[in-house]
Amino acid sequence: MEYVEETDRIVVRLARGDRVMESLETIRDECEVTGAFFFGIGAVDEVTLGHYDVGEQDYKERTFEEDFEVTGLLGNIGPDKIHAHIQLGRRDFSTLSGHFAGGRVSGTFELIVVPVATELVHQYDEPTGLDVFDLE
Amino acid sequence: MEYVEETDRIVVRLARGDRVMESLETIRDECEVTGAFFFGIGAVDEVTLGHYDVGEQDYKERTFEEDFEVTGLLGNIGPDKIHAHIQLGRRDFSTLSGHFAGGRVSGTFELIVVPVATELVHQYDEPTGLDVFDLE
Amino acid sequence: MEYVEETDRIVVRLARGDRVMESLETIRDECEVTGAFFFGIGAVDEVTLGHYDVGEQDYKERTFEEDFEVTGLLGNIGPDKIHAHIQLGRRDFSTLSGHFAGGRVSGTFELIVVPVATELVHQYDEPTGLDVFDLE
Repeated sequence: MEYVEETDRIVVRLARGDRVMESLETIRDECEVTGAFFFGIGAVDEVTLGHYDVGEQDYKERTFEEDFEVTGLLGNIGPDKIHAHIQLGRRDFSTLSGHFAGGRVSGTFELIVVPVATELVHQYDEPTGLDVFDLE
Repeated sequence: MEYVEETDRIVVRLARGDRVMESLETIRDECEVTGAFFFGIGAVDEVTLGHYDVGEQDYKERTFEEDFEVTGLLGNIGPDKIHAHIQLGRRDFSTLSGHFAGGRVSGTFELIVVPVATELVHQYDEPTGLDVFDLE
Repeated sequence: MEYVEETDRIVVRLARGDRVMESLETIRDECEVTGAFFFGIGAVDEVTLGHYDVGEQDYKERTFEEDFEVTGLLGNIGPDKIHAHIQLGRRDFSTLSGHFAGGRVSGTFELIVVPVATELVHQYDEPTGLDVFDLE
């Protein structure tokens, strides 16, 4: 993992073998990010996707091990939670998408993190059972 | 709907039941946004997708009602039009994608809006039949 | 192709017939961009997708000619390389995704380019066979 903290943004490159979520958590902690949005592209060879069941208030997760192009990892960073969704291109260019629970870089992974002034602290949201950031 | 207008960006969170497009229109109007780009993730349980037929100069639309993870809503805001495309992850992680004509939040929806100085006013584009923003 | 270079961002609109990658290269050269991230949406009627085989260290490419909504083109710009991934919505809203090797605009294409201070010069990466930007 390499990153450069600039004024108003952080440029990130992850290398083969890096864990995506843990790398983002490390950057969050080292740069003391309390709120940010990010997007990036890359490739993974192991990834866990989730789909939230609002009725059961639970994520259904599944891990895939194959070579994926990551055509989008988008999300946001709070001091207590990183929330990301991911799109994955398979070898035949068909696509898997879902909540991103974690994954391992196969080729490269290149992201920009854009800090915001607002602290994105998460609170339990009764109607959905999710921990969501509260702006009020 | 909650949002915080910071210098140079707007942080947005939509709650269960909020309409995505109408919420963005309200933010646009309240913050007097004349040009902006945005991206975000979330979940919807009702969504209308479009696919533009350049030959017929018409959108083919279809509404889906099921639990989707929104793995990307990307677009831009003009004073007269919000243009967005969306990716949706189904329960089996297969993916639907298209022009975003509207949808309802099921879980949460979290966006960053990045204003630009240029006014993104739309003009009719003869060759395509689309209203597109004109930078000249 | 039209673009406006603002302080800290470039707003881009491509028109029917424009080549996406070549347009981004022109903007990079004219604005002397040495590092940037970008995202955008649009429509293409010809596009070449790639999927990288880390084992064989080679992209498998395939060109598609049909009307696609581009629900996300994300990537980054270095002085020597533009790296982008793309998601495509078909007429039935099913989705193709992969490395973006080039494409032609059918309707419109609207992007925001966010420059970074760090120069994103690419170096050969032995373990993967890719040219990746090096932040060290």
